[in-house]
Amino acid sequence: VSASKGIETATGLRMDQVMREVLAPESMERFTVLSGPSFAREVASGTPTAVVVASDSEEARKAAQRIFQTESFRVYTNPDVIGVELGGALKNVIALAAGVAVGLGYGHNTVSALITRGLDEITRLGVALGASRATFYGLAGMGDLVLTCTGELSRNRSVGFRLGAGESLEEILGEMKMVAEGVKTAQAVHALAKEHGVEVPIIEEVNAIVTGKRTPAEAVRTLMLREPRSEAWT
Amino acid sequence: VSASKGIETATGLRMDQVMREVLAPESMERFTVLSGPSFAREVASGTPTAVVVASDSEEARKAAQRIFQTESFRVYTNPDVIGVELGGALKNVIALAAGVAVGLGYGHNTVSALITRGLDEITRLGVALGASRATFYGLAGMGDLVLTCTGELSRNRSVGFRLGAGESLEEILGEMKMVAEGVKTAQAVHALAKEHGVEVPIIEEVNAIVTGKRTPAEAVRTLMLREPRSEAWT
Repeated sequence: VSASKGIETATGLRMDQVMREVLAPESMERFTVLSGPSFAREVASGTPTAVVVASDSEEARKAAQRIFQTESFRVYTNPDVIGVELGGALKNVIALAAGVAVGLGYGHNTVSALITRGLDEITRLGVALGASRATFYGLAGMGDLVLTCTGELSRNRSVGFRLGAGESLEEILGEMKMVAEGVKTAQAVHALAKEHGVEVPIIEEVNAIVTGKRTPAEAVRTLMLREPRSEAWT
Repeated sequence: VSASKGIETATGLRMDQVMREVLAPESMERFTVLSGPSFAREVASGTPTAVVVASDSEEARKAAQRIFQTESFRVYTNPDVIGVELGGALKNVIALAAGVAVGLGYGHNTVSALITRGLDEITRLGVALGASRATFYGLAGMGDLVLTCTGELSRNRSVGFRLGAGESLEEILGEMKMVAEGVKTAQAVHALAKEHGVEVPIIEEVNAIVTGKRTPAEAVRTLMLREPRSEAWT
Protein backbone atom coordinates (compact mmCIF):
# COMPACT_ATOMS: atom_id res chain seq x y z
CA VAL A 1 0.00 0.00 0.00
CA SER A 2 1.41 3.37 -0.99
CA ALA A 3 -0.01 6.74 0.01
CA SER A 4 0.39 9.14 -2.89
CA LYS A 5 -0.87 12.59 -3.78
CA GLY A 6 1.27 13.71 -6.67
CA ILE A 7 2.46 13.57 -10.22
CA GLU A 8 6.22 13.11 -10.65
CA THR A 9 7.17 16.61 -11.75
CA ALA A 10 10.08 15.68 -14.01
CA THR A 11 8.15 13.09 -16.02
CA GLY A 12 4.47 13.99 -15.55
CA LEU A 13 3.82 10.38 -14.50
CA ARG A 14 1.25 9.35 -11.91
CA MET A 15 2.51 7.33 -8.96
CA ASP A 16 1.02 4.07 -10.30
CA GLN A 17 2.93 4.63 -13.55
CA VAL A 18 6.18 5.19 -11.65
CA MET A 19 5.55 2.05 -9.57
CA ARG A 20 4.80 0.04 -12.70
CA GLU A 21 8.36 0.77 -13.86
CA VAL A 22 9.77 -0.41 -10.54
CA LEU A 23 7.60 -3.28 -9.32
CA ALA A 24 7.08 -6.77 -10.72
CA PRO A 25 3.72 -7.14 -12.56
CA GLU A 26 2.37 -9.54 -9.90
CA SER A 27 2.99 -6.89 -7.22
CA MET A 28 1.25 -4.19 -9.28
CA GLU A 29 -1.98 -6.21 -9.20
CA ARG A 30 -2.25 -5.37 -5.52
CA PHE A 31 -1.05 -1.74 -5.85
CA THR A 32 -3.30 0.41 -3.61
CA VAL A 33 -3.48 4.18 -3.06
CA LEU A 34 -4.96 6.04 -0.09
CA SER A 35 -6.15 9.65 -0.38
CA GLY A 36 -8.71 12.10 0.99
CA PRO A 37 -9.11 15.15 3.24
CA SER A 38 -6.63 14.32 5.98
CA PHE A 39 -4.32 16.87 7.61
CA ALA A 40 -1.81 14.57 9.35
CA ARG A 41 -1.85 16.58 12.58
CA GLU A 42 -5.62 16.17 12.88
CA VAL A 43 -5.47 12.44 12.15
CA ALA A 44 -2.82 12.10 14.89
CA SER A 45 -5.00 13.97 17.38
CA GLY A 46 -7.96 11.65 16.76
CA THR A 47 -10.22 14.04 14.81
CA PRO A 48 -12.78 11.96 12.88
CA THR A 49 -11.43 11.59 9.34
CA ALA A 50 -12.71 9.81 6.20
CA VAL A 51 -10.49 8.68 3.32
CA VAL A 52 -10.66 6.41 0.29
CA VAL A 53 -8.45 3.51 -0.83
CA ALA A 54 -8.29 2.49 -4.49
CA SER A 55 -6.90 -0.61 -6.14
CA ASP A 56 -7.59 -2.71 -9.24
CA SER A 57 -7.84 -5.67 -6.86
CA GLU A 58 -11.05 -5.82 -4.83
CA GLU A 59 -9.29 -8.07 -2.35
CA ALA A 60 -6.44 -5.58 -1.87
CA ARG A 61 -8.71 -2.58 -1.34
CA LYS A 62 -10.90 -4.45 1.12
CA ALA A 63 -7.79 -5.57 2.99
CA ALA A 64 -6.57 -1.95 3.17
CA GLN A 65 -9.99 -0.87 4.42
CA ARG A 66 -9.87 -3.54 7.16
CA ILE A 67 -6.32 -2.68 8.19
CA PHE A 68 -6.62 1.11 8.36
CA GLN A 69 -10.17 1.58 9.64
CA THR A 70 -10.50 2.70 13.26
CA GLU A 71 -13.13 4.49 15.32
CA SER A 72 -11.75 7.87 14.20
CA PHE A 73 -10.49 6.94 10.69
CA ARG A 74 -13.19 5.76 8.30
CA VAL A 75 -12.04 4.14 5.05
CA TYR A 76 -14.14 3.89 1.88
CA THR A 77 -13.15 1.75 -1.13
CA ASN A 78 -13.09 2.73 -4.81
CA PRO A 79 -11.87 0.73 -7.84
CA ASP A 80 -10.66 3.89 -9.67
CA VAL A 81 -6.89 4.16 -9.04
CA ILE A 82 -6.33 6.85 -11.70
CA GLY A 83 -9.13 9.08 -10.38
CA VAL A 84 -8.04 8.84 -6.74
CA GLU A 85 -4.45 9.75 -7.69
CA LEU A 86 -5.44 12.59 -10.04
CA GLY A 87 -7.83 14.18 -7.53
CA GLY A 88 -4.96 14.77 -5.13
CA ALA A 89 -2.63 16.07 -7.84
CA LEU A 90 -4.94 18.34 -9.88
CA LYS A 91 -6.52 20.05 -6.87
CA ASN A 92 -3.23 21.91 -6.23
CA VAL A 93 -3.76 24.22 -9.21
CA ILE A 94 -7.24 25.18 -7.94
CA ALA A 95 -5.75 25.78 -4.45
CA LEU A 96 -3.34 28.24 -6.09
CA ALA A 97 -6.34 30.05 -7.61
CA ALA A 98 -8.17 30.12 -4.24
CA GLY A 99 -5.05 31.63 -2.66
CA VAL A 100 -4.87 34.32 -5.34
CA ALA A 101 -8.52 35.25 -4.66
CA VAL A 102 -7.95 35.57 -0.90
CA GLY A 103 -4.73 37.52 -1.53
CA LEU A 104 -6.71 39.95 -3.68
CA GLY A 105 -9.03 40.52 -0.71
CA TYR A 106 -12.02 38.58 -2.06
CA GLY A 107 -14.33 36.59 0.22
CA HIS A 108 -16.13 33.29 0.68
CA ASN A 109 -18.34 33.77 -2.40
CA THR A 110 -15.30 33.79 -4.68
CA VAL A 111 -13.58 30.82 -3.02
CA SER A 112 -16.79 28.72 -3.10
CA ALA A 113 -17.27 29.54 -6.80
CA LEU A 114 -13.63 28.65 -7.59
CA ILE A 115 -13.96 25.32 -5.74
CA THR A 116 -17.18 24.46 -7.62
CA ARG A 117 -16.12 25.53 -11.12
CA GLY A 118 -12.56 24.30 -10.46
CA LEU A 119 -13.82 20.83 -9.57
CA ASP A 120 -15.77 20.87 -12.84
CA GLU A 121 -12.51 21.54 -14.73
CA ILE A 122 -10.39 18.89 -13.04
CA THR A 123 -13.25 16.39 -13.38
CA ARG A 124 -13.45 16.96 -17.15
CA LEU A 125 -9.67 16.65 -17.41
CA GLY A 126 -9.63 13.53 -15.20
CA VAL A 127 -12.35 11.84 -17.27
CA ALA A 128 -10.34 12.59 -20.44
CA LEU A 129 -7.35 10.90 -18.75
CA GLY A 130 -9.33 7.73 -17.98
CA ALA A 131 -10.71 8.40 -14.48
CA SER A 132 -14.34 7.96 -13.36
CA ARG A 133 -16.43 11.08 -12.90
CA ALA A 134 -17.85 9.83 -9.56
CA THR A 135 -14.39 9.71 -7.97
CA PHE A 136 -14.00 13.49 -8.33
CA TYR A 137 -17.20 14.03 -6.33
CA GLY A 138 -15.82 11.80 -3.57
CA LEU A 139 -13.27 12.17 -0.77
CA ALA A 140 -10.13 12.19 -2.96
CA GLY A 141 -11.68 14.81 -5.26
CA MET A 142 -14.00 17.38 -3.78
CA GLY A 143 -13.18 16.37 -0.18
CA ASP A 144 -9.47 17.06 -0.54
CA LEU A 145 -10.14 20.16 -2.68
CA VAL A 146 -12.40 21.71 0.01
CA LEU A 147 -9.81 20.92 2.69
CA THR A 148 -6.95 22.48 0.73
CA CYS A 149 -8.86 25.58 -0.37
CA THR A 150 -10.47 26.40 3.01
CA GLY A 151 -8.25 24.80 5.66
CA GLU A 152 -4.90 25.99 6.92
CA LEU A 153 -2.62 27.38 4.23
CA SER A 154 -1.31 24.68 1.96
CA ARG A 155 1.91 25.48 0.09
CA ASN A 156 0.07 26.14 -3.15
CA ARG A 157 -2.64 28.22 -1.55
CA SER A 158 0.01 30.26 0.23
CA VAL A 159 1.99 30.92 -2.98
CA GLY A 160 -1.29 32.01 -4.58
CA PHE A 161 -2.05 34.27 -1.63
CA ARG A 162 1.30 36.07 -1.97
CA LEU A 163 0.82 36.48 -5.74
CA GLY A 164 -2.68 37.88 -5.16
CA ALA A 165 -1.34 40.27 -2.51
CA GLY A 166 1.03 41.77 -5.09
CA GLU A 167 4.40 40.04 -4.58
CA SER A 168 6.25 39.07 -7.71
CA LEU A 169 7.04 35.45 -8.49
CA GLU A 170 10.76 36.32 -8.22
CA GLU A 171 10.36 37.64 -4.67
CA ILE A 172 8.48 34.50 -3.59
CA LEU A 173 10.85 32.21 -5.49
CA GLY A 174 13.76 33.77 -3.64
CA GLU A 175 12.45 32.50 -0.31
CA MET A 176 10.60 29.25 -0.93
CA LYS A 177 12.10 26.39 -2.83
CA MET A 178 8.73 24.64 -3.20
CA VAL A 179 7.25 27.47 -5.25
CA ALA A 180 8.99 26.20 -8.35
CA GLU A 181 7.05 22.97 -7.90
CA GLY A 182 3.67 24.70 -7.64
CA VAL A 183 4.46 26.68 -10.76
CA LYS A 184 5.61 23.58 -12.61
CA THR A 185 2.43 21.72 -11.64
CA ALA A 186 0.25 24.53 -13.01
CA GLN A 187 2.20 24.49 -16.27
CA ALA A 188 2.15 20.68 -16.55
CA VAL A 189 -1.61 20.45 -15.87
CA HIS A 190 -2.30 23.26 -18.33
CA ALA A 191 -0.27 21.48 -21.01
CA LEU A 192 -2.09 18.20 -20.28
CA ALA A 193 -5.49 19.89 -20.72
CA LYS A 194 -4.39 21.46 -24.02
CA GLU A 195 -3.09 18.11 -25.28
CA HIS A 196 -6.48 16.47 -24.53
CA GLY A 197 -8.59 19.39 -25.81
CA VAL A 198 -10.24 20.04 -22.44
CA GLU A 199 -11.44 23.60 -21.71
CA VAL A 200 -9.97 24.69 -18.34
CA PRO A 201 -10.44 28.47 -17.91
CA ILE A 202 -9.36 28.66 -14.25
CA ILE A 203 -6.25 26.52 -14.79
CA GLU A 204 -5.45 28.62 -17.87
CA GLU A 205 -5.54 31.84 -15.82
CA VAL A 206 -3.39 30.31 -13.05
CA ASN A 207 -0.88 29.37 -15.73
CA ALA A 208 -1.04 32.92 -17.16
CA ILE A 209 -0.31 34.34 -13.68
CA VAL A 210 2.62 32.06 -12.82
CA THR A 211 4.21 32.58 -16.23
CA GLY A 212 3.87 36.36 -15.86
CA LYS A 213 1.42 36.79 -18.78
CA ARG A 214 -1.30 38.37 -16.68
CA THR A 215 -1.62 40.04 -13.28
CA PRO A 216 -3.97 38.40 -10.75
CA ALA A 217 -6.52 41.21 -11.21
CA GLU A 218 -6.45 40.81 -15.01
CA ALA A 219 -6.89 37.04 -14.64
CA VAL A 220 -10.00 37.46 -12.46
CA ARG A 221 -11.44 39.97 -14.91
CA THR A 222 -10.86 37.56 -17.81
CA LEU A 223 -12.67 34.77 -15.93
CA MET A 224 -15.65 36.93 -14.97
CA LEU A 225 -16.07 38.31 -18.50
CA ARG A 226 -16.04 34.97 -20.34
CA GLU A 227 -18.92 34.14 -22.65
CA PRO A 228 -22.07 33.44 -20.55
CA ARG A 229 -22.70 29.70 -20.31
CA SER A 230 -24.78 26.92 -18.80
CA GLU A 231 -23.86 24.61 -15.92
CA ALA A 232 -24.51 21.48 -17.99
CA TRP A 233 -21.96 18.65 -17.97
CA THR A 234 -20.01 18.54 -21.22
CA VAL B 1 -37.86 36.03 -11.22
CA SER B 2 -37.92 34.91 -7.57
CA ALA B 3 -34.85 34.20 -5.44
CA SER B 4 -35.59 31.25 -3.19
CA LYS B 5 -33.63 29.00 -0.89
CA GLY B 6 -36.22 27.17 1.15
CA ILE B 7 -38.97 24.70 1.61
CA GLU B 8 -42.15 26.11 3.16
CA THR B 9 -41.89 24.66 6.64
CA ALA B 10 -45.59 24.25 7.34
CA THR B 11 -46.35 22.38 4.10
CA GLY B 12 -43.02 20.90 2.98
CA LEU B 13 -43.59 22.48 -0.43
CA ARG B 14 -40.81 23.87 -2.63
CA MET B 15 -41.11 27.48 -3.71
CA ASP B 16 -42.17 26.55 -7.27
CA GLN B 17 -44.99 24.46 -5.81
CA VAL B 18 -46.14 27.37 -3.65
CA MET B 19 -45.98 29.71 -6.65
CA ARG B 20 -47.93 27.24 -8.78
CA GLU B 21 -50.84 27.62 -6.33
CA VAL B 22 -50.66 31.40 -6.60
CA LEU B 23 -49.72 32.25 -10.18
CA ALA B 24 -51.60 31.75 -13.42
CA PRO B 25 -50.24 28.79 -15.50
CA GLU B 26 -48.94 31.11 -18.24
CA SER B 27 -46.84 32.98 -15.63
CA MET B 28 -45.44 29.73 -14.23
CA GLU B 29 -43.91 28.92 -17.61
CA ARG B 30 -41.45 31.74 -17.03
CA PHE B 31 -40.90 31.01 -13.30
CA THR B 32 -37.16 31.37 -12.60
CA VAL B 33 -35.09 30.74 -9.46
CA LEU B 34 -31.65 32.13 -8.63
CA SER B 35 -29.33 30.40 -6.15
CA GLY B 36 -25.65 29.77 -5.39
CA PRO B 37 -22.86 30.71 -2.95
CA SER B 38 -23.63 34.38 -2.37
CA PHE B 39 -23.37 36.10 1.01
CA ALA B 40 -25.33 39.31 0.35
CA ARG B 41 -22.74 41.52 2.05
CA GLU B 42 -20.00 40.22 -0.25
CA VAL B 43 -22.14 40.68 -3.36
CA ALA B 44 -22.82 44.27 -2.29
CA SER B 45 -19.10 44.94 -1.79
CA GLY B 46 -18.26 43.73 -5.32
CA THR B 47 -16.56 40.41 -4.43
CA PRO B 48 -16.60 38.20 -7.54
CA THR B 49 -19.58 35.86 -7.18
CA ALA B 50 -21.04 33.09 -9.37
CA VAL B 51 -24.65 31.90 -9.21
CA VAL B 52 -27.09 29.84 -11.26
CA VAL B 53 -30.57 30.63 -12.61
CA ALA B 54 -33.03 27.84 -13.41
CA SER B 55 -36.27 27.87 -15.35
CA ASP B 56 -38.27 25.49 -17.52
CA SER B 57 -38.16 28.20 -20.17
CA GLU B 58 -34.81 28.57 -21.94
CA GLU B 59 -35.83 32.08 -22.95
CA ALA B 60 -36.58 33.07 -19.35
CA ARG B 61 -33.31 31.73 -17.93
CA LYS B 62 -31.26 33.37 -20.68
CA ALA B 63 -33.07 36.64 -20.01
CA ALA B 64 -32.30 36.36 -16.28
CA GLN B 65 -28.65 35.64 -17.12
CA ARG B 66 -28.49 38.74 -19.34
CA ILE B 67 -30.21 40.97 -16.78
CA PHE B 68 -28.24 39.96 -13.68
CA GLN B 69 -24.75 39.37 -15.09
CA THR B 70 -22.16 42.04 -14.29
CA GLU B 71 -18.37 42.15 -14.11
CA SER B 72 -18.48 40.88 -10.51
CA PHE B 73 -21.61 38.70 -10.67
CA ARG B 74 -21.39 35.77 -13.08
CA VAL B 75 -24.62 33.93 -13.90
CA TYR B 76 -24.84 30.34 -15.20
CA THR B 77 -28.05 28.78 -16.54
CA ASN B 78 -29.56 25.39 -15.69
CA PRO B 79 -32.89 23.87 -16.78
CA ASP B 80 -33.34 21.99 -13.46
CA VAL B 81 -35.66 24.12 -11.28
CA ILE B 82 -36.27 21.36 -8.70
CA GLY B 83 -32.55 20.66 -8.21
CA VAL B 84 -31.57 24.32 -7.86
CA GLU B 85 -34.29 24.85 -5.22
CA LEU B 86 -33.54 21.64 -3.31
CA GLY B 87 -29.78 22.29 -3.17
CA GLY B 88 -30.39 25.46 -1.18
CA ALA B 89 -32.92 23.82 1.15
CA LEU B 90 -31.29 20.45 1.89
CA LYS B 91 -27.83 21.87 2.55
CA ASN B 92 -29.09 23.37 5.84
CA VAL B 93 -29.23 19.96 7.53
CA ILE B 94 -25.60 19.26 6.57
CA ALA B 95 -24.63 22.73 7.86
CA LEU B 96 -26.16 21.73 11.20
CA ALA B 97 -23.94 18.61 11.20
CA ALA B 98 -20.83 20.67 10.33
CA GLY B 99 -21.64 23.00 13.23
CA VAL B 100 -21.96 20.07 15.62
CA ALA B 101 -18.52 18.78 14.53
CA VAL B 102 -16.86 22.16 15.10
CA GLY B 103 -18.68 22.54 18.44
CA LEU B 104 -17.28 19.16 19.49
CA GLY B 105 -13.78 20.52 18.79
CA TYR B 106 -13.15 18.57 15.59
CA GLY B 107 -11.13 20.01 12.70
CA HIS B 108 -11.04 20.53 8.95
CA ASN B 109 -10.80 16.79 8.21
CA THR B 110 -14.21 16.17 9.79
CA VAL B 111 -15.91 19.15 8.14
CA SER B 112 -14.52 18.23 4.69
CA ALA B 113 -15.73 14.63 5.12
CA LEU B 114 -19.20 15.81 6.23
CA ILE B 115 -19.45 18.13 3.22
CA THR B 116 -18.46 15.33 0.82
CA ARG B 117 -20.56 12.52 2.27
CA GLY B 118 -23.37 14.98 3.07
CA LEU B 119 -23.52 16.12 -0.56
CA ASP B 120 -23.76 12.45 -1.55
CA GLU B 121 -26.84 12.09 0.70
CA ILE B 122 -28.68 15.19 -0.47
CA THR B 123 -27.86 14.30 -4.10
CA ARG B 124 -29.41 10.84 -3.71
CA LEU B 125 -32.46 12.36 -2.03
CA GLY B 126 -32.72 15.11 -4.67
CA VAL B 127 -32.54 12.59 -7.53
CA ALA B 128 -35.32 10.57 -5.87
CA LEU B 129 -37.38 13.79 -5.76
CA GLY B 130 -36.92 14.43 -9.50
CA ALA B 131 -33.80 16.64 -9.62
CA SER B 132 -30.76 16.12 -11.87
CA ARG B 133 -27.61 14.74 -10.27
CA ALA B 134 -25.39 17.31 -12.06
CA THR B 135 -27.17 20.23 -10.38
CA PHE B 136 -25.97 19.08 -6.94
CA TYR B 137 -22.36 19.25 -8.13
CA GLY B 138 -22.92 22.82 -9.29
CA LEU B 139 -23.19 26.24 -7.67
CA ALA B 140 -26.62 25.74 -6.04
CA GLY B 141 -25.53 22.38 -4.59
CA MET B 142 -21.91 21.93 -3.60
CA GLY B 143 -21.11 25.65 -4.02
CA ASP B 144 -23.72 26.79 -1.52
CA LEU B 145 -22.95 23.82 0.78
CA VAL B 146 -19.24 24.72 0.95
CA LEU B 147 -20.09 28.38 1.63
CA THR B 148 -22.53 27.53 4.43
CA CYS B 149 -20.31 24.91 6.11
CA THR B 150 -17.04 26.88 5.98
CA GLY B 151 -17.99 30.58 5.75
CA GLU B 152 -19.22 32.80 8.54
CA LEU B 153 -21.68 31.13 10.87
CA SER B 154 -25.01 30.49 9.20
CA ARG B 155 -27.99 30.10 11.54
CA ASN B 156 -28.05 26.33 11.15
CA ARG B 157 -24.30 25.95 11.56
CA SER B 158 -24.43 28.10 14.66
CA VAL B 159 -27.26 26.05 16.23
CA GLY B 160 -25.21 22.93 15.48
CA PHE B 161 -22.13 24.50 17.04
CA ARG B 162 -23.96 25.20 20.30
CA LEU B 163 -25.39 21.66 20.40
CA GLY B 164 -21.90 20.24 19.79
CA ALA B 165 -20.47 22.45 22.52
CA GLY B 166 -22.87 20.90 25.02
CA GLU B 167 -25.84 23.29 25.28
CA SER B 168 -29.26 21.69 25.39
CA LEU B 169 -31.85 22.35 22.71
CA GLU B 170 -34.04 24.01 25.36
CA GLU B 171 -31.31 26.51 26.29
CA ILE B 172 -30.76 27.44 22.63
CA LEU B 173 -34.49 27.51 21.88
CA GLY B 174 -34.98 29.96 24.73
CA GLU B 175 -32.83 32.57 22.97
CA MET B 176 -33.22 32.11 19.24
CA LYS B 177 -36.56 31.91 17.53
CA MET B 178 -35.08 30.58 14.28
CA VAL B 179 -33.81 27.42 15.96
CA ALA B 180 -37.23 25.85 15.78
CA GLU B 181 -37.01 26.24 12.00
CA GLY B 182 -33.63 24.48 11.74
CA VAL B 183 -34.96 21.64 13.85
CA LYS B 184 -38.14 21.39 11.79
CA THR B 185 -36.11 21.30 8.55
CA ALA B 186 -34.00 18.41 9.85
CA GLN B 187 -37.12 16.49 10.81
CA ALA B 188 -38.91 17.26 7.53
CA VAL B 189 -35.91 16.24 5.39
CA HIS B 190 -35.43 13.06 7.41
CA ALA B 191 -39.11 12.16 6.93
CA LEU B 192 -38.82 12.86 3.19
CA ALA B 193 -35.82 10.51 2.89
CA LYS B 194 -37.64 7.76 4.79
CA GLU B 195 -40.70 8.15 2.58
CA HIS B 196 -38.55 7.73 -0.56
CA GLY B 197 -36.39 4.92 0.84
CA VAL B 198 -33.15 6.90 0.56
CA GLU B 199 -30.33 6.04 2.98
CA VAL B 200 -29.18 9.27 4.69
CA PRO B 201 -26.96 8.41 7.70
CA ILE B 202 -25.77 11.98 8.43
CA ILE B 203 -29.28 13.47 8.19
CA GLU B 204 -30.53 10.61 10.39
CA GLU B 205 -28.00 11.47 13.11
CA VAL B 206 -28.79 15.20 12.92
CA ASN B 207 -32.44 14.27 13.40
CA ALA B 208 -31.51 12.02 16.35
CA ILE B 209 -29.62 14.93 17.96
CA VAL B 210 -32.32 17.59 17.52
CA THR B 211 -35.02 15.22 18.78
CA GLY B 212 -32.92 14.36 21.82
CA LYS B 213 -32.46 10.69 20.92
CA ARG B 214 -28.65 10.86 20.87
CA THR B 215 -25.93 13.17 22.16
CA PRO B 216 -23.63 14.74 19.54
CA ALA B 217 -20.75 12.45 20.64
CA GLU B 218 -22.94 9.34 20.32
CA ALA B 219 -24.10 10.48 16.87
CA VAL B 220 -20.50 10.87 15.62
CA ARG B 221 -19.59 7.45 17.02
CA THR B 222 -22.57 5.89 15.25
CA LEU B 223 -21.50 7.45 11.93
CA MET B 224 -17.87 6.35 12.24
CA LEU B 225 -18.76 2.77 13.18
CA ARG B 226 -21.19 2.12 10.33
CA GLU B 227 -20.65 -0.91 8.12
CA PRO B 228 -17.56 -0.30 5.91
CA ARG B 229 -18.61 0.62 2.38
CA SER B 230 -17.53 1.76 -1.07
CA GLU B 231 -17.74 5.25 -2.54
CA ALA B 232 -19.70 4.04 -5.57
CA TRP B 233 -22.82 5.94 -6.68
CA THR B 234 -25.98 4.06 -5.76
